[in-house]
Amino acid sequence: MAVDDVRSGFRRSWSDLASVGRNTAGGYDRFAWTRTDHDLREWFAGEASDLGLDLTTDRVGNQWAWWGDPYAAGAAPAVVTGSHLDSVPSGGAFDGPLGVVSSLLAVRSLRAAGHRPDHPMAVVNFVDEEGARFGVACAGSRILTGALSPERALALTDADGTTMADALAAAGRDPLALGSDPDLVARIGAFVELHVEQGRALDDVHANVGVGSHIWPHGRWRIDVPGEANHAGTTALDDRRDAMLGFAAAVIAARRAAQSRGCVATVGKVRATPNGVNAIPSEVTGWLDARGESEAAVHQVVADVTEVMADFEATVREESWTPTTAFDDALVRRLASRLGGIPVLGTGAGHDAGILAGAGVRAAMLFVRNPTGISHSPEEFAEEADCLAGVDALTRVLADLTGATP
Amino acid sequence: MAVDDVRSGFRRSWSDLASVGRNTAGGYDRFAWTRTDHDLREWFAGEASDLGLDLTTDRVGNQWAWWGDPYAAGAAPAVVTGSHLDSVPSGGAFDGPLGVVSSLLAVRSLRAAGHRPDHPMAVVNFVDEEGARFGVACAGSRILTGALSPERALALTDADGTTMADALAAAGRDPLALGSDPDLVARIGAFVELHVEQGRALDDVHANVGVGSHIWPHGRWRIDVPGEANHAGTTALDDRRDAMLGFAAAVIAARRAAQSRGCVATVGKVRATPNGVNAIPSEVTGWLDARGESEAAVHQVVADVTEVMADFEATVREESWTPTTAFDDALVRRLASRLGGIPVLGTGAGHDAGILAGAGVRAAMLFVRNPTGISHSPEEFAEEADCLAGVDALTRVLADLTGATP
Repeated sequence: MAVDDVRSGFRRSWSDLASVGRNTAGGYDRFAWTRTDHDLREWFAGEASDLGLDLTTDRVGNQWAWWGDPYAAGAAPAVVTGSHLDSVPSGGAFDGPLGVVSSLLAVRSLRAAGHRPDHPMAVVNFVDEEGARFGVACAGSRILTGALSPERALALTDADGTTMADALAAAGRDPLALGSDPDLVARIGAFVELHVEQGRALDDVHANVGVGSHIWPHGRWRIDVPGEANHAGTTALDDRRDAMLGFAAAVIAARRAAQSRGCVATVGKVRATPNGVNAIPSEVTGWLDARGESEAAVHQVVADVTEVMADFEATVREESWTPTTAFDDALVRRLASRLGGIPVLGTGAGHDAGILAGAGVRAAMLFVRNPTGISHSPEEFAEEADCLAGVDALTRVLADLTGATP
Repeated sequence: MAVDDVRSGFRRSWSDLASVGRNTAGGYDRFAWTRTDHDLREWFAGEASDLGLDLTTDRVGNQWAWWGDPYAAGAAPAVVTGSHLDSVPSGGAFDGPLGVVSSLLAVRSLRAAGHRPDHPMAVVNFVDEEGARFGVACAGSRILTGALSPERALALTDADGTTMADALAAAGRDPLALGSDPDLVARIGAFVELHVEQGRALDDVHANVGVGSHIWPHGRWRIDVPGEANHAGTTALDDRRDAMLGFAAAVIAARRAAQSRGCVATVGKVRATPNGVNAIPSEVTGWLDARGESEAAVHQVVADVTEVMADFEATVREESWTPTTAFDDALVRRLASRLGGIPVLGTGAGHDAGILAGAGVRAAMLFVRNPTGISHSPEEFAEEADCLAGVDALTRVLADLTGATP
């Protein structure tokens, strides 16, 4: 496929998605099993159909657009690419969709070039990667691989108190069907996820594409600070049990601990009860996100925060934990070499590729340069030329993995 | 009216109101111009009708149940009592309703006793005293007295972005009718508001009822801390502009300043954007409530917080400010004396009585003992015997102010 055709295909896809789930602030609110999510899934199905791929939906709701049949007798292990279409609250346009769009374009290019893959191939759209609605990141790949049980997943609730079970039912899916599919996972011979970089490492070395080698260990903890509701004007300071003070201490302790342990830590979400201007909070809940190169260091950050929280009788509970995820070493080296010795880098962000790798799938990632490093924000951006370089890199990798001779 | 009849009347009213706007946590969510507010207003209208009082509604929507005509030629200045029926989020049963219920019972007692007032009397139900929905406390009395302009009031928005203008229209009121009524205010010769105490001062001196002498100066400030949305895992600590850190500093600075200045300060409400677990907040807004015996000390608290906030490029803006409100000295002394030398006390809470006093109305308050001091909470409580003592005190005060000879 000519470079011009790839560019126009990229622009068309980008234009298709530009308005879906966009809020008035210019960010994207694309949450699992909402109307917006439905529109994105319909778009994906339409693209698969247009490419002549066979669309299947697994027990979790992840969409697979197949070129070839992985279940055929004697089928070779499948080569899969893809990413996700959901977003964080007011997120950017690239995190997720860039991988899906690039994957579809790469397949289109291979078909246009008359490539005949010697492995079944698929583009996958994983549901609920960001965990923005139900609080567990990579829910689609976690449930698929058995890392998250359907019982626990179905009971998760969103901010309105809706369970995932109810959300699935409202989206027309049978909650009882939810579950892992070890057979499908076992048929994946290699998984390559392309993603916009979420830091500035590639920009620092003037590279437009890089290969992901590992994902930092990371987790989420919920901090519940108890208090006693009371009137803000009439209750003496000594008579108060103000939950907001404990929350503030948690925020500051998390930053200090991250600094001293060489990690990153964030308290990005807070919920105060009753959240009234003239009411002393009876409870404040904060969520801590902590990551770093070393698992021990990350746990030490959480221990530091927990120690401070003891003074406030607050509880710190783990909501999720993912150890260091190393991608397949041979696959990483093959990608880097096939692409002319491009940079190899780790990342602090979790990805479905990491969940698959954790389940024993040979996986790796491609990162596309992010000139500002800004992500999870309406400001998230990548140059079109870099995105097209990403499509080209992914196309060459997929060709290589499915039998093309260089 | 016999003591038993007052008790049964009190129990009936309490039972009428017990379920209105009650949430599953046992607290009350009674916000201005909602369906719940409508139900409370209907209840008030029914009580007025049952007592044979004439119900009028002023331009703001405050309800007045009249015994006698304040507009009659040669009418004496009116003696008014009452309070409010709205609540803070998940508030208690007593803050507001105790005053309204006690006022209605006092009038019922006076009528049953064949009292012939030599002044027109009214029981008033002020709307939107807590400011829980639109952020401005005592909105009903502020607009009535001209302390809050209708233009500013109509543009206030609730958490869903609904303006007060739209809320009024949805409740069947004409937003264009909103405005002050100086003629009505001028006809109030005396206003006595009964209220549950919100601290433990009466309990400390073993008194069931006290007279309010003044309201502390108090205000609300909005603190906007800017940040930059970014990924919580991939953004180096040095590259971050995390708005939550500034918010935490504000919470701690407010408590420290209040301690050192002899005031009380509370950050009870917070809003983080985008409020995602793995997103560095691009903005966090907190609301500061500060009060104290001295106006200068309260302003010093805000100055202390503002100084700390400068480091975070945060803005601190006044949303409301009420100077010290002294109730009418002669009226306070008359109430205390008429009730046998009961305690006289100041309060840190704002009240409609304070707004009226600020507008030149002779006003005072009666407080009913709160054994725990807890207020603005489902735990808010007063003993029935103390509530009945409050009704008795209010009845005697109203009789005295309307010509009864002791």
